[in-house]
Amino acid sequence: MTELDRHDTIRAVHWLGDRLRLLDQRRLPFEEVFIECHSAADVAQAIKDLAVRGAPAIGIAAAWGVVLAAQHTPQILSDCLRLLRASRPTAVNLMWALERMQGVIDQGGDVARLTEEARHIQEEDLAANRRMGELGASLLSGGGVMTHCNTGSLATAGFGTALGVIRSGFAKGKVSKVYAGETRPWLQGARLTMYELVRDGIPAQLIADSAAAYLMRSGAVQWVIVGADRIAANGDTANKIGTYQLAIAARHHGVKFMVVAPSSTVDMATADGAGIEIELRDASELLGVSGTRTVVDGASAWNPVFDVTPSSLIDAIVTERGIIERPDRKSMAAVFRPGAAE
Amino acid sequence: MTELDRHDTIRAVHWLGDRLRLLDQRRLPFEEVFIECHSAADVAQAIKDLAVRGAPAIGIAAAWGVVLAAQHTPQILSDCLRLLRASRPTAVNLMWALERMQGVIDQGGDVARLTEEARHIQEEDLAANRRMGELGASLLSGGGVMTHCNTGSLATAGFGTALGVIRSGFAKGKVSKVYAGETRPWLQGARLTMYELVRDGIPAQLIADSAAAYLMRSGAVQWVIVGADRIAANGDTANKIGTYQLAIAARHHGVKFMVVAPSSTVDMATADGAGIEIELRDASELLGVSGTRTVVDGASAWNPVFDVTPSSLIDAIVTERGIIERPDRKSMAAVFRPGAAE
Repeated sequence: MTELDRHDTIRAVHWLGDRLRLLDQRRLPFEEVFIECHSAADVAQAIKDLAVRGAPAIGIAAAWGVVLAAQHTPQILSDCLRLLRASRPTAVNLMWALERMQGVIDQGGDVARLTEEARHIQEEDLAANRRMGELGASLLSGGGVMTHCNTGSLATAGFGTALGVIRSGFAKGKVSKVYAGETRPWLQGARLTMYELVRDGIPAQLIADSAAAYLMRSGAVQWVIVGADRIAANGDTANKIGTYQLAIAARHHGVKFMVVAPSSTVDMATADGAGIEIELRDASELLGVSGTRTVVDGASAWNPVFDVTPSSLIDAIVTERGIIERPDRKSMAAVFRPGAAE
Repeated sequence: MTELDRHDTIRAVHWLGDRLRLLDQRRLPFEEVFIECHSAADVAQAIKDLAVRGAPAIGIAAAWGVVLAAQHTPQILSDCLRLLRASRPTAVNLMWALERMQGVIDQGGDVARLTEEARHIQEEDLAANRRMGELGASLLSGGGVMTHCNTGSLATAGFGTALGVIRSGFAKGKVSKVYAGETRPWLQGARLTMYELVRDGIPAQLIADSAAAYLMRSGAVQWVIVGADRIAANGDTANKIGTYQLAIAARHHGVKFMVVAPSSTVDMATADGAGIEIELRDASELLGVSGTRTVVDGASAWNPVFDVTPSSLIDAIVTERGIIERPDRKSMAAVFRPGAAE
């Protein structure tokens, strides 16, 4: 077991040959319960209900959903693809994975070929995460980092995007301490990131989302490292609500800001952040906590679950294809323009 | 009943002649339960446990605590004062109220005289809030406002500081919509501010603390209006954790930032924010929500419950003595220098 492996022990998505097994992330950190999906509809529901979440993990789960649908008639398969595509609106990895699967279908691919493609998507994601971990860690100079939401093994095929950079950085002695924002309303930081960090032995402290700026002012943090749900052609990045606020605070304090995501997150068809659909979820997620109502009856809430960070506030975007410093339309096109080297 | 009274129906601190009745704010919004304090120790415990909270309300409760102690020997009275002083460290109103009570004791005041002083403190606070409401509302030009934590009737003798300005602004047609941040970890915004706004018929929506910048970017908010726990001589303001982050985001978007607090919150003996003690509360407040553990065992948390907003990010400080625009050492001294007109 390598030093890195010791800090990377969790996997959330398991293909069992005839069904998909998902670690139910709604019940973490106290119950490690798996759910089994026997149909594309099961997978779509698991995505919608956040049993599986994280942009790359959603894409991977959806690819397996297509495999589950592939034994049916072309009409049913087509309906299943539509159902999966509609399960979450913001993360582009979902659309990307479904397009790859559609490509295999269009070429007359059978179940075996679709299974192979889904497996590739999952394996490529893990490899991309390890590569991004190397690249992102090379930017760090030692010290404290802050992250938001969960971008770890639970959100991906394994290892993680932003949390992968943190895993690599810790293994190389370039990260000494991680601060995790709790990430209301769903508490992905509190429930999931702290679970990964504690379990994998990386020193971490939880903070309230609103304590980030005060933490930065203290000098304890040199980099904010986050994932992404969609990156537009100019580098504008949609990610978990609160990311934009962190980027503003980071710039105010001279703290560096890094976005880490596989190239499947890049959507060159969307010119900038204004074109990204932001998912609004039910107000009830804010009107209670962990199923207990906390707000008076008759109250309403505004619950956007993503926001857009303009590329001008981002110091580096890290994908498996390389590091883009001070991203803009031009530097993004150099890497992601159709026809650019893969 | 005036238009304003219709939007101001809650009182949290009640003197009953021989005991202090406090609306238990830990159990709002679903249970309106009162606790009764028969001794200064009861009051100190209620302050420490957040049954009564909000800088002005803490000061008022502490003054009544001194009345409860006044029937005892001078030694016990002196111990009680020390106990009350130590109950919360950041809010200066607590120290200010206890100094006023100490002044009466030093002049040989009896229980009747102490009772009168405590009543004055409470009545002056309500009057100050109504005056600040007028002053602060005069700065508004109509539209959306955002607030943080709870600064309403529950946090004061009544009407509120920042929420008083919002009440006045709404009654004058200068506020059409209020956005309240939920204010982790204690959810004062979700539990208390939404309770006040819904009950008093003021249109409001709850947001996650981390959604504030994205909300500002949408153009829905023209002013952020907050209270204060201590204002230093240069206008630096300690307030609920998250206030600093809001001030940075407001400046980034050209949204105006107003601090509303009675002059008892101003601490001219503290030169600037660096001299303000910030209360760190127990990590358990972040490791669970409403008594339910949400974070994995073995995790730790950093839980500062206040932060300091530098005066350079504040557009106006409103006290009952007037409006200080672009506060700094000089403009603060003009109003609060010892010897300045009361």
